[in-house]
Amino acid sequence: MHGLLTDLYQLTMAAGYYQAGKVHEKATFELFVRKLPHNRNFLIAAGLEQAVDYLLNLRFTEEEVGYLRGLSQFAQVPKGFFEALRAFRFTGDVFAVAEGTPMFAGEPLLTVRAPLMEAQIPETYLLATIGFQTMIATKAARMTEAAYGRSVVEFGTRRAHSPEAGVLAGRAAYVGGCVGTSNTLAGFRYNIPVFGTAAHSWVQAFPAELDAFRELQKLLGPATVYLIDTYDTVEGARHAAQLGEPVWGVRLDSGNMTELSQAVRRVLDDAGLKNGKIMVTGDLNEYKILELMAAKAPIDSFGVGTELATSADAPNLGAVYKLVELESNGQKRYTAKFSENKLTMPGAKQVFRFDDHDEIACSWECRGCSSTGPAAQALLRPVIVGGRLVEALPPATAARENACDSLKKLPGVYRRLFAAEEPYPVWYTPALNRLLEQVRKEREGVPA
Amino acid sequence: MHGLLTDLYQLTMAAGYYQAGKVHEKATFELFVRKLPHNRNFLIAAGLEQAVDYLLNLRFTEEEVGYLRGLSQFAQVPKGFFEALRAFRFTGDVFAVAEGTPMFAGEPLLTVRAPLMEAQIPETYLLATIGFQTMIATKAARMTEAAYGRSVVEFGTRRAHSPEAGVLAGRAAYVGGCVGTSNTLAGFRYNIPVFGTAAHSWVQAFPAELDAFRELQKLLGPATVYLIDTYDTVEGARHAAQLGEPVWGVRLDSGNMTELSQAVRRVLDDAGLKNGKIMVTGDLNEYKILELMAAKAPIDSFGVGTELATSADAPNLGAVYKLVELESNGQKRYTAKFSENKLTMPGAKQVFRFDDHDEIACSWECRGCSSTGPAAQALLRPVIVGGRLVEALPPATAARENACDSLKKLPGVYRRLFAAEEPYPVWYTPALNRLLEQVRKEREGVPA
Repeated sequence: MHGLLTDLYQLTMAAGYYQAGKVHEKATFELFVRKLPHNRNFLIAAGLEQAVDYLLNLRFTEEEVGYLRGLSQFAQVPKGFFEALRAFRFTGDVFAVAEGTPMFAGEPLLTVRAPLMEAQIPETYLLATIGFQTMIATKAARMTEAAYGRSVVEFGTRRAHSPEAGVLAGRAAYVGGCVGTSNTLAGFRYNIPVFGTAAHSWVQAFPAELDAFRELQKLLGPATVYLIDTYDTVEGARHAAQLGEPVWGVRLDSGNMTELSQAVRRVLDDAGLKNGKIMVTGDLNEYKILELMAAKAPIDSFGVGTELATSADAPNLGAVYKLVELESNGQKRYTAKFSENKLTMPGAKQVFRFDDHDEIACSWECRGCSSTGPAAQALLRPVIVGGRLVEALPPATAARENACDSLKKLPGVYRRLFAAEEPYPVWYTPALNRLLEQVRKEREGVPA
Repeated sequence: MHGLLTDLYQLTMAAGYYQAGKVHEKATFELFVRKLPHNRNFLIAAGLEQAVDYLLNLRFTEEEVGYLRGLSQFAQVPKGFFEALRAFRFTGDVFAVAEGTPMFAGEPLLTVRAPLMEAQIPETYLLATIGFQTMIATKAARMTEAAYGRSVVEFGTRRAHSPEAGVLAGRAAYVGGCVGTSNTLAGFRYNIPVFGTAAHSWVQAFPAELDAFRELQKLLGPATVYLIDTYDTVEGARHAAQLGEPVWGVRLDSGNMTELSQAVRRVLDDAGLKNGKIMVTGDLNEYKILELMAAKAPIDSFGVGTELATSADAPNLGAVYKLVELESNGQKRYTAKFSENKLTMPGAKQVFRFDDHDEIACSWECRGCSSTGPAAQALLRPVIVGGRLVEALPPATAARENACDSLKKLPGVYRRLFAAEEPYPVWYTPALNRLLEQVRKEREGVPA
């Protein structure tokens, strides 16, 4: 796995830690989102499988090491550092929340505890893979909430930020609640249902629409979905009706979806195709889906592309990866940031999920453990220990079930498409607040 | 190269063309952008190298074919189709504009002419790779325009839509005018300058800021950039000044950049570090860069991450790939779409660039060829002919020079950060307009 797929400063810092004799200090970094994006009340954690795969396979090839040695920034770096890169293996521990878990601002999704160099280099990759998939899974969860039980399919690879982003968007959208994706490689790699039948070019490739539809039906049988808006949507519906069973239904890709879906429904019903379904596509998002549902448009399935695969209304997630703890010769030092909008709480943490709130605690605390008080679930579980996977990760299907079941438990106000007046209640424990105060005092006492 | 990295419907359509005996019909598809995104007056074409690499190496493995055979959608597909996938090679032609070329709405960036199946399957990948890189190169060009000659560096991998998107964003940003990227793999793969020194965690990993700075200077010498805002920016500048030469300069990542850069400049100047440079980073975009330049903030370099690598103000480009021509048994049929907002002009085209306008012509036309009229450059050049690369593509450096030189020739009004009152003049030639009318009449005459 590409060791160089990281920001250069991770590697210069690693070299610096080597030079300063700090490579064996054990660092703890936490990955979290400081502030939920616009209109979001929760995130759906996703991307752990790819993060783990990366950490377990992170290597530097001879060519990659040679490239670094040739860079001016590495001219003065001790040779031993390059040996260390050649021998690089991730030997640390990773704690993470299960994919599909709803998470809130400030809660760690992932904790890395490893020798400083091993924990530093992966920052860029971990942020990009978990940040992106979490953003897309969250967007997909919003779409499926808006669709009130109608199916939503992810169709966005062509507009994704690179083909590979399309594959991962397909996976993340499925975790977030979509029934599947059009991305065939995502289906192959992650065992996700795949969907898709034909485009406008198919209709155009035949002299007449009816010929194109007939040929498609011959090919796909009961999976046939006619795209009916190439020339005239209602006329297209009549052609579909004319061919009768077998058919799944029709797809509308342009025009006024409320009116057209009603007109098309009538055409199909009049032809006895009561079971023929209507799918709509074309620049949809959760807000438009909500409008269509509110207007009682007779739509059975939504196909969403661009806005889902790029999370268009919030195209980046402010995920950060922050140093919270350093251990050297058995001595722990806690680190924090006190800037107004960029507070980082010190020390390794645990997130406890109670029925009606979350508590962010010091990692050594036990919350909800007493037999008399309310029960709580510890969300961060060991995933990698000493560089080895603890157990196989659950597949995307299980992550999707986790998201679906967990969201059902979340009060309705947080599942809406708009920001709740108050965010979901997440508290720091008294012990964590005390640690923050302790670090603040130490910082003030240190000569700058 | 992953044959399955495409929308499923490309493969069902391919199967359908096989079934309908249409696989040998030669299709021409064009890739273009219907409408420029918000505030854009031009695009910078990018991503051709990856598109070509994909087409030349597109294959279906035995496992991939087996996966398709197992899908319900392929249950009725003739067996010969799977043989055709196993033997799949792209044997067609590709015409494309050089990377780095400024392009406008409606102008083809790439034309694919190949047997229907070979031209159809690549649609998804081509759109994702060229659409994404073009979007990012365009965003980078806007940043460099705003910076009026100050350098702009791409730092966005951590917020990119997947790690691989970060690598391609680094490449595309360089093509668009950035001086380099923090993405080390992009530097290694594409021979692009890489930048980066240290993060806040570096400063935090030492008991005091001055220790962290001293250690960094020992490591990086004249490439040293101190990140000075971990605790207090001006105090950080004093620590940097205290250590003197060698140093590149300092980086500010938070706070009021105009005031802080002035204060820091004074500290460096007073310490005799007149050559010490100031870089700023932190949620920058072209609009903020313009403000800082207008305020005469003494900034030498801008590092831009999230907003560049995700093109945050316009996070998707409406690139489309449309069938314009079909040839069967020597007979040509032109295809077009007449929908109000989705007009597709029929037939293979050429784009001619004159000094003060572009003309979109039929591919067989010659514009600007007469010795008396104004000269014009034909932008679409053969890149792949009969499945073979015509000549090695220019490296990213040449693409970047192309962008830089071409943008200099563009009138200032189109290089601004806001939409010009009128778009850059792009005309259809009379012959192309006649072809559109001919197709419209044919369409009306065809029984629906």
